[in-house]
Amino acid sequence: MAERFEIVEKAVLKMLEDKKYATLRDILVTMNPSDVAGLFDGLEEKQIPLMYRLLPKELAAETFVEMEPEAQELLIRSFSDNELKEVLDELYVDDAADLVEEMPANVVKRILKHADPEMRHSINQILRYPENSAGSIMTTEYVSLRPGMTVGEAILRIRRQGVDKETIYTCYVLAKDRTLIGLVTVKDLLLAEDDEDKIEDLMLTNLICVTTQTDQEEVARMFSKYNFLALPVVDGEHRMVGIVTFDDAMDVMEEEATEDMEIMAAMTPSEKTYLKSTPFDLYKHRIPWLMLLMVSATFTGMIISSFEEALALLPALTAFIPMLMDTGGNCGSQSSVTVIRSLSLDELRFSDIFRVMWKEFRTAILCGATLAVVCFVKILLIDRLLMGNTSISLLVDGVVCLTLGVTVVIAKFVGCSLPLLAKRLGFDPAVMASPFITTIVDALSLLVYFMFAKTLLGL
Amino acid sequence: MAERFEIVEKAVLKMLEDKKYATLRDILVTMNPSDVAGLFDGLEEKQIPLMYRLLPKELAAETFVEMEPEAQELLIRSFSDNELKEVLDELYVDDAADLVEEMPANVVKRILKHADPEMRHSINQILRYPENSAGSIMTTEYVSLRPGMTVGEAILRIRRQGVDKETIYTCYVLAKDRTLIGLVTVKDLLLAEDDEDKIEDLMLTNLICVTTQTDQEEVARMFSKYNFLALPVVDGEHRMVGIVTFDDAMDVMEEEATEDMEIMAAMTPSEKTYLKSTPFDLYKHRIPWLMLLMVSATFTGMIISSFEEALALLPALTAFIPMLMDTGGNCGSQSSVTVIRSLSLDELRFSDIFRVMWKEFRTAILCGATLAVVCFVKILLIDRLLMGNTSISLLVDGVVCLTLGVTVVIAKFVGCSLPLLAKRLGFDPAVMASPFITTIVDALSLLVYFMFAKTLLGL
Repeated sequence: MAERFEIVEKAVLKMLEDKKYATLRDILVTMNPSDVAGLFDGLEEKQIPLMYRLLPKELAAETFVEMEPEAQELLIRSFSDNELKEVLDELYVDDAADLVEEMPANVVKRILKHADPEMRHSINQILRYPENSAGSIMTTEYVSLRPGMTVGEAILRIRRQGVDKETIYTCYVLAKDRTLIGLVTVKDLLLAEDDEDKIEDLMLTNLICVTTQTDQEEVARMFSKYNFLALPVVDGEHRMVGIVTFDDAMDVMEEEATEDMEIMAAMTPSEKTYLKSTPFDLYKHRIPWLMLLMVSATFTGMIISSFEEALALLPALTAFIPMLMDTGGNCGSQSSVTVIRSLSLDELRFSDIFRVMWKEFRTAILCGATLAVVCFVKILLIDRLLMGNTSISLLVDGVVCLTLGVTVVIAKFVGCSLPLLAKRLGFDPAVMASPFITTIVDALSLLVYFMFAKTLLGL
Repeated sequence: MAERFEIVEKAVLKMLEDKKYATLRDILVTMNPSDVAGLFDGLEEKQIPLMYRLLPKELAAETFVEMEPEAQELLIRSFSDNELKEVLDELYVDDAADLVEEMPANVVKRILKHADPEMRHSINQILRYPENSAGSIMTTEYVSLRPGMTVGEAILRIRRQGVDKETIYTCYVLAKDRTLIGLVTVKDLLLAEDDEDKIEDLMLTNLICVTTQTDQEEVARMFSKYNFLALPVVDGEHRMVGIVTFDDAMDVMEEEATEDMEIMAAMTPSEKTYLKSTPFDLYKHRIPWLMLLMVSATFTGMIISSFEEALALLPALTAFIPMLMDTGGNCGSQSSVTVIRSLSLDELRFSDIFRVMWKEFRTAILCGATLAVVCFVKILLIDRLLMGNTSISLLVDGVVCLTLGVTVVIAKFVGCSLPLLAKRLGFDPAVMASPFITTIVDALSLLVYFMFAKTLLGL
């Protein structure tokens, strides 16, 4: 797939350079707008308006929506007023609102000047909602019906109004004051026995809807739970203000999963794709967490310093520090990532905390015992016999493996409970992933290690 | 949301215990099938068939699809032959195939016995495709049209056949030999000017389709790229065999993101949800990776052992080992997770490897320099002045910070290149996430540390 696209990309570039515009146009019109938009990524700045003008009007507008903001800005600056108006007329309101959000102020001014008054109003309305809310990702273009209409009248209305709507397949039934009272699908309308049936007899009334303030993550979860094509968005008085469509929910799902992964790897989430990010962008998103975690490692340093004498007496103990720390970190992150993901898929609630802890405890005992036994044998065979490190007595081996077992239990306990607590306290549980867990588990495992060493080895 | 659901759950349980069946039924019929299915999770075994029989026929079937396999099995065992037939008649073929896959052999036998011959054939067909392929998640129920039909005839056909199809909104135009030649949407049909227009003049012919063998991850990516409601699935001869609908693609997206996160946290992906997994399930998915990573930490131990004398001369060096290892690990996992996610969203290809390395190198220089400077000052102020650790000379401080800077560069380099190499070699890049990167970076950073210590401090 990706390889085939690279071939097309090269052919298009060649044709553009050879000025074979007619052939190029014939190829472009057979392609999907998303793929055409992908081609623009590989062009030089001055080629972008050139190729864009080869596209027929409708394909041009559909392609425009799918393009990267940089190319969109460049095009808008090169558009005549008429060209700009043509593109804006073809855009759905939510795409226009996204565009306005991405563009610099002077471009926004020009866009709003050339949008028709109704669209300008809708754009302003959408932009007023908080970022990441249902209001900010909805579109205000949907088909609304009245309860008293017949099926025939409803179909007629869809035929008249449908061309400008993002989806016609779910239609919303509104009372006179625009409160949402039901929905019918086009399937219901087409399969209705009689064209004279009333909408109010046909409509579904056990509605699932969100408000303009609902978090987009919650909206995406509802899509994946209920398999809707579109979800109605209402205001505080249950008046219908827009719909979120499944394609926007898919984008949100992808975005939220990416965000979770970034936070789990100790980065501030970024909206730019990797290849569009400058090293300084990456630096800004990464350095605060690195700094915080580095400074908090001071504690592990302090613990080691305070046991310096014991280590001096038995230097072999030092060699096992990385293994103990890493295994603890891995165990902790297994538990924390599992819990974080279950929380974000809504499979877990805070009230499950004791079930989770009990399950993790039993898992930890199994993992800890297995690892301790394997480690004991490994140290005996490899470190002591094979490498001839005679300072590792059976008792030392025992201390290391006992520490390992206890560390696993501590790590799994910390790993499963911190994300749940974070959620309870209103923080993003994803913060409590590997890096933080590792830092905490490091300190605890070293404490356990030296405690056992002092007590059992008498150092 | 979750809290409101808990209240409903309690009320339902109470009504069931108090035998207020009529009231309970009145409440259940107002609910969405997914939510009703959620209620069954909280019931005892003997209550499940009881509550299920309260549901009206259609809601019962829709709820059945959304239930957990355990409850489905229990119900099927309690069904009379007639009841089973009724449920099966209401199921879409892809849901029936999923059901057959989940159930034990004797239940499957009963299901296939009572499914009508056409459904039995389709189920068998779907089950023949490899797991995680487009064929395994498709449904064979779609609306097909002929190119010579008029718009009016097409709408009539949809009205006649539509009730059993998972989606009617995208209809596929097939030639006589069942090869796919085009598609029309119900929107196109409804908005057509004239009922006598021919389908072949209206249909879209630049089709995007997948084959039965296409990986489901690729299918999900195409949905999120092209915003389709459904994607046609063809066989090797371009004959149409089924469709994948957006709701299945959403499930795949979620599943794949979860899988990536699990692999990144050193676990074998599991199909069961967390609360359904026994500690032994969790153990099986976690222990192999823990063991592998523990054993590979032998190398770090060996490196430390071979520098035992140097550490004995200047024990203060040991205290910085955890900080160096953790920072290296964090830097590496930032880079690897970013690259892994970009790969799985198709934003990066292997051919970008030099761009990625150059970008990460510059980011690493920025991060490394900042961390080294901050660390230098921190050690000076906290460890040396505040804690009075006089064995940390300025030169020792310098060695630690120089190591830190170099470790950051190595970590980012390893972190960004290994996932790309893994992808190139046909492995899942997600394996090259934090745990593996950490193990490798640990060893490298210790080598750098001791090398600098030996050269600069003359140990």
